[in-house]
Amino acid sequence: MQTLHVELGDRRYPIFIGSHLDIQHLLKPYIQGKQVMIVTNDTVAPLYLETYKKALTALDKVTAQCILRDGEKFKNIENLNLIFDALLASGFNRDCTVLALGGGVIGDMAGFAAASFQRGVNFIQVPTTLLSQVDSSVGGKTGINHPLGKNMIGAFKQPSVVFADMNQLSTLPPRELSAGLSEIIKYALLGDIEFLAWLEGNMPKLVAGDEQALAEAVYRSCAHKARIVANDEHEKGERALLNLGHTFGHAIESYLGYGTWLHGEAVAVGMVMAAELSHLMGWISTEDLARVKHIIQQANLPIYCPEIPLDEFLSYMSHDKKVLDGKIRLILMKKLGHAVITEEFNVDYMKQAILNNQKKGE
Amino acid sequence: MQTLHVELGDRRYPIFIGSHLDIQHLLKPYIQGKQVMIVTNDTVAPLYLETYKKALTALDKVTAQCILRDGEKFKNIENLNLIFDALLASGFNRDCTVLALGGGVIGDMAGFAAASFQRGVNFIQVPTTLLSQVDSSVGGKTGINHPLGKNMIGAFKQPSVVFADMNQLSTLPPRELSAGLSEIIKYALLGDIEFLAWLEGNMPKLVAGDEQALAEAVYRSCAHKARIVANDEHEKGERALLNLGHTFGHAIESYLGYGTWLHGEAVAVGMVMAAELSHLMGWISTEDLARVKHIIQQANLPIYCPEIPLDEFLSYMSHDKKVLDGKIRLILMKKLGHAVITEEFNVDYMKQAILNNQKKGE
Repeated sequence: MQTLHVELGDRRYPIFIGSHLDIQHLLKPYIQGKQVMIVTNDTVAPLYLETYKKALTALDKVTAQCILRDGEKFKNIENLNLIFDALLASGFNRDCTVLALGGGVIGDMAGFAAASFQRGVNFIQVPTTLLSQVDSSVGGKTGINHPLGKNMIGAFKQPSVVFADMNQLSTLPPRELSAGLSEIIKYALLGDIEFLAWLEGNMPKLVAGDEQALAEAVYRSCAHKARIVANDEHEKGERALLNLGHTFGHAIESYLGYGTWLHGEAVAVGMVMAAELSHLMGWISTEDLARVKHIIQQANLPIYCPEIPLDEFLSYMSHDKKVLDGKIRLILMKKLGHAVITEEFNVDYMKQAILNNQKKGE
Repeated sequence: MQTLHVELGDRRYPIFIGSHLDIQHLLKPYIQGKQVMIVTNDTVAPLYLETYKKALTALDKVTAQCILRDGEKFKNIENLNLIFDALLASGFNRDCTVLALGGGVIGDMAGFAAASFQRGVNFIQVPTTLLSQVDSSVGGKTGINHPLGKNMIGAFKQPSVVFADMNQLSTLPPRELSAGLSEIIKYALLGDIEFLAWLEGNMPKLVAGDEQALAEAVYRSCAHKARIVANDEHEKGERALLNLGHTFGHAIESYLGYGTWLHGEAVAVGMVMAAELSHLMGWISTEDLARVKHIIQQANLPIYCPEIPLDEFLSYMSHDKKVLDGKIRLILMKKLGHAVITEEFNVDYMKQAILNNQKKGE
C-alpha cells in the first residue's frame, strides 16, 4: 500500500492506494460521529456495499445507504435531493459522515451533498473506477449537471480520506478501464515525459488489469494532480492544465448526448485534437503527434470522434465553463510533456484539428 | 453612511449602512465581470428592481433577473433551481455576479446559488428587510429548507459587499419591522447590556421607523455579529450564541408551519423562554426577566406562543440542527447581557419555561 498526501493546509488528506486495503483499520481515524451514509449506485451496491457496512458496523457506527441509479444521466438535482431525503429521513445530523462508494458520478454527487448538507459534513471517498481514482478523488471538485451544461452546479469539497483499491477494478468493464487510462495518459502529456515513456512500456499490463502496474499508475497520476491542486485549489491558474483535451471532449460529449461516449473516450479524442493543433502551431513534431495517438490507441481508446458539424462543435466548445468573456482558452502542448493554458492560437488551425480527427460518415 | 468591515481574512467585506445610498458609485469596485443576475421576489421587484438595473446598466453591466415568489415556503430546491435555470439560460459564466435584492429568504437562496453556480461566483447582498440587514447579511450562512427541516441544505458563502439602506425599510410592513427588532434585541441580550439600555430608550423611535435610529441599531447589531463570526466562521463554538431563542423558536415555527409566524416573532418568544429558564436556574433575577419581556413587548412582539403539546414541542426542539448526538444544547443567560452555550440545565425547568410562555386555548 502507498499513501499520498494532498497538501491543502488544514484540509490536508491522505489517499491510500493498494490492493485489498484493510478498510476497517484505515477508516477508523477519519470518522468522528456515529452516523455514516453510504452513497452508491445499483451497479456497485451488490458488489461492495456489504463489505463497507460490515466494516463500519464493526467500528460501532450507525450506517444507512442511498442507492442511486447508475449513470451520468442521473447526476442531476433530482437525484441529489434523494441523498438529502435519505440523510434527513435517517435523522442524520451535522457530525455525520457521507461516504461515496462508486465512480465519478457518485463521488461528485455525494461530495456535493456532503458539502451542502447542514452546510458541510465529513466526506470520505471510495472511488471504484480507475477514472475516479485518478481524477475526481483528488481536488475536491463536486457537482451535478444541468440540462444546459455539465458540472454547472457544485462545490469545492475536500474529502477527509480517499481509498483507491485496485482490487475493485477487477469488476470494471474493459471500456471503463480504458476511459480511466485516458486521464492517466493526460497527466503524462501535460507535464511528465518520463511518465509517458513508463506508460508506453507498461500499457499492455495496465490494459490487462495488472494490479501492481495500476497502483503505480494511479499513484503517479494522483501525485501529479495533488501537486497541481495544492498550488491552485480553486482553479485560478495552473489547475486549468488538468483540462487538457476537455474543451474538445466536452463538445463531443455534449453533441453525442452525455452517456453515449464515456468521458475518458471523449477526452482521448480531445487530447488528439489538442496535440494536432499544437502540431499545426509548430510546437510539437510529427513524431510527437504520432506518439500521442499511439499511446491512446494502446489504451484501446478512440482517436477519432464521429462526424459533427463544425459550427455545432464550436458552439458546444464555447459553452464550456472554461470560456471567459467569450474567449476560448485551450490547453495546448508547447512541447510533448509540457502543456500551457493559452488563448493565442490560430482559429483556422483549431478548426482543422477538429475536422482532421472526425471519422466521416459515422 | 457608516461602513463596517466583517473581518474574514481574504474574504473580508464591507457593509455600507445608511439612507439613500449612492448604489451606482458604491457597487462599482465589487463587480469585475460583465454579467449580473439580480435575484429578487415579486414583492420587492416592483419597488426596487429598476433602480438596481439602472445603476448596473450605467456601470456598463449586462443584467438579468430571476423573480421568485415571496415567502419562506418557496425557499426550497425547486425555486433554487429556477435561479440556476435563469443563470444558464442567460449564458452566464463563472465571472458573473449574483446580487440578492430582498429579505432573508432571497439572500439565503441567492447566496446558495452563488456558492454553487460554477462552484462559486461573486455574490452581493442588498437586504431589504430589517431582519436580513442585521441577521443574514452578516456571516455567510446560506441555504434552503427541506420538508424535514429548515436550512438543512446550504453553504457558507461570504458576499463581497452588503448594502443596508434604511430608506428601503419605509416600505416594510410594521410586523416585519418588529420581527427585525427581535434579532436586534437578541444582540443586546446575548452580550451587550449597554445596548439593551440604548434600545429601551430608543424603541419608540425604532418602531416608528426613524431612519437614523434604525441605522444606529443596524450598525451595532452587525458589529456584534461581525465580531462573533470573525472569531468562529463555521460555528464550531462561540457563533452558536447567535442562536439565543432559536431552538425554542424553531419548535414554534415548525409546529405552526413555516410562514404562519414570522421568524423574528418565534425567536422573540424563544428568548422569553430562554430567559425564563435562566431565571428558574437562578442565573437572572425576576427584574431581569421582566426587562426581557418588556423590551420585547416594546417592539410589538409576542411574549407567548399558542398552546403546543409539550411532547411535540420537545420533539421539534430535538430535531433542531443544534442538537449534537441527541443532547440539547441551549443558549441561556448566565446574567442579563451575557449568554452561554450549555447542556447543563434542569430539564424540568426547561419544560416549565416552555409551558409558562404559552397562551392556553390559542
